[in-house]
Amino acid sequence: MSVIYDRVALIGLGLIASSMFWAIKRKGLAGEVTGYARSDATRQTARHIGLCDHVYDSAADAVAGADLVVLCVPVGVMGQVAAEIAPHLKQGATVTDVGSVKRDVIDSVGPHLPENVHFIPGHPLAGTEHSGPESGFAELFDQRWCLLVPVEGSDRAAVDRLCSFWEGIGSNVQEMEADHHDLVLAVTSHAPHLIAYTMVGVADDLSRVTDREVIKYSAAGFRDFTRIAASDPTMWRDVFLSNKDATLEILGRFTEELFALQRAIRTGDGDHLHEYFTRTRAIRRGIIEAGQDTDAPDFGRKKSGP
Amino acid sequence: MSVIYDRVALIGLGLIASSMFWAIKRKGLAGEVTGYARSDATRQTARHIGLCDHVYDSAADAVAGADLVVLCVPVGVMGQVAAEIAPHLKQGATVTDVGSVKRDVIDSVGPHLPENVHFIPGHPLAGTEHSGPESGFAELFDQRWCLLVPVEGSDRAAVDRLCSFWEGIGSNVQEMEADHHDLVLAVTSHAPHLIAYTMVGVADDLSRVTDREVIKYSAAGFRDFTRIAASDPTMWRDVFLSNKDATLEILGRFTEELFALQRAIRTGDGDHLHEYFTRTRAIRRGIIEAGQDTDAPDFGRKKSGP
Repeated sequence: MSVIYDRVALIGLGLIASSMFWAIKRKGLAGEVTGYARSDATRQTARHIGLCDHVYDSAADAVAGADLVVLCVPVGVMGQVAAEIAPHLKQGATVTDVGSVKRDVIDSVGPHLPENVHFIPGHPLAGTEHSGPESGFAELFDQRWCLLVPVEGSDRAAVDRLCSFWEGIGSNVQEMEADHHDLVLAVTSHAPHLIAYTMVGVADDLSRVTDREVIKYSAAGFRDFTRIAASDPTMWRDVFLSNKDATLEILGRFTEELFALQRAIRTGDGDHLHEYFTRTRAIRRGIIEAGQDTDAPDFGRKKSGP
Repeated sequence: MSVIYDRVALIGLGLIASSMFWAIKRKGLAGEVTGYARSDATRQTARHIGLCDHVYDSAADAVAGADLVVLCVPVGVMGQVAAEIAPHLKQGATVTDVGSVKRDVIDSVGPHLPENVHFIPGHPLAGTEHSGPESGFAELFDQRWCLLVPVEGSDRAAVDRLCSFWEGIGSNVQEMEADHHDLVLAVTSHAPHLIAYTMVGVADDLSRVTDREVIKYSAAGFRDFTRIAASDPTMWRDVFLSNKDATLEILGRFTEELFALQRAIRTGDGDHLHEYFTRTRAIRRGIIEAGQDTDAPDFGRKKSGP
């Protein structure tokens, strides 16, 4: 694949930015990739592992001359970073982000940017529970969706170019309206994360069962929750605070439904439970068919037997 | 490893029994393994794939002469199956089970069994979201815990023998008291499963977001939930109904905690959220250190980059 942007600047050097860097290099999507991180330790680590062609000590220097600037910082500081880089942006540059919430980012970043740059918010639906510059890998975005959320009056050519860039990184790209994005993500990601965090906290609080026992005997259910609940605390705090309305709406529906199932347990209504569990099974099948997960019966462990 | 029981009978031929069979064969732990399933179709499938040395058309025939009988049926029918096989059990045989709840199984199975057999309830902490005779594989129990819950007056030699059997299958074995087992499992498995089922059901109900969107954009959080929520509906209905008190207690604590986090979101209390999420991250580290899960940053995908 050929170069799509001569110069790409990654602002914030965590899991997403570092994975983007290795994916950009894999396909040669950029002539040069610059980087900046607020923390000195992160910048040192990035230089040490060869993350970015050049790591700058200021965001202003990193974005100077960049054709594409990618904001890879927690949602809560996007606005502040935008204000910092705005005077240094190249005319005609594209500014995008990778935040998990879009309406809040549009409201906080948009007003700072000059008229002569293209602001095209984005959100790659990919991640792991690990964070930091050393956690990235080139394949993170392969076959995953990247949602682009163009604001009113976005330049079509600039959007198409960013779309090609994410496709080069490995993603399938789709455009979506900001508020709808925030609702879809509240259902598929934000509420599930809060729920997982909660359950892991409850286990930790229970005095009659020791942490050691919880850890030792954590079967599939809880183990999956702990993986989710190990995600970056700062990133997730910002997600919940900036997608407040949608998250609270989904959580409201969730508790309503949970209470109905609790009542079914209490009253011994086995039919209600069985019917509910049968319905949820079908949704899983849909996900397998949509190619978003593997159906390997052994989760990748070596198989013997039939 | 040498033969531990001359004849083992597996009653119920789903994921657990089929995995046990392949694990028994892998190490030669039994002279002969017989099997029985209530459904004719399951028995046909079992014969077709070579599951069990002999599949019988009645539980009575399957257990005749068996030195170890393993009840691998949903918790809700354990008592009924025990009543059915009781008159046909060999003197001195050991009867165990693999149910996810122990107090209820003890109460429903125990009274049916004759004095001259050893009843030693058990619970291997292993599974996948798949069910049926074709879903099993020999490695399912490797390095997983198997909890044995001996009832009062259990014969020590019989318990030790069953322990060796499970170790041969690949498990680490630990003994635990029945009520404590049910509480620990309510925390680590039963409540998380109900929560996952609930969240998947909520997503399905939401009219403003289509099922297709939920499936297409299901990021890590939700995808893990759907995997959990795809587990066998009958098995789980029985688990919740038979571990009612502990499950409801944990769910009560869960909603209490969830409401506190919801309030923190509503009031914008970022410190509360950040503190909570930091604490849950530590629990995950404990699980990795206890060897119950992998810490691979790419979930096993091929890694490039640094």
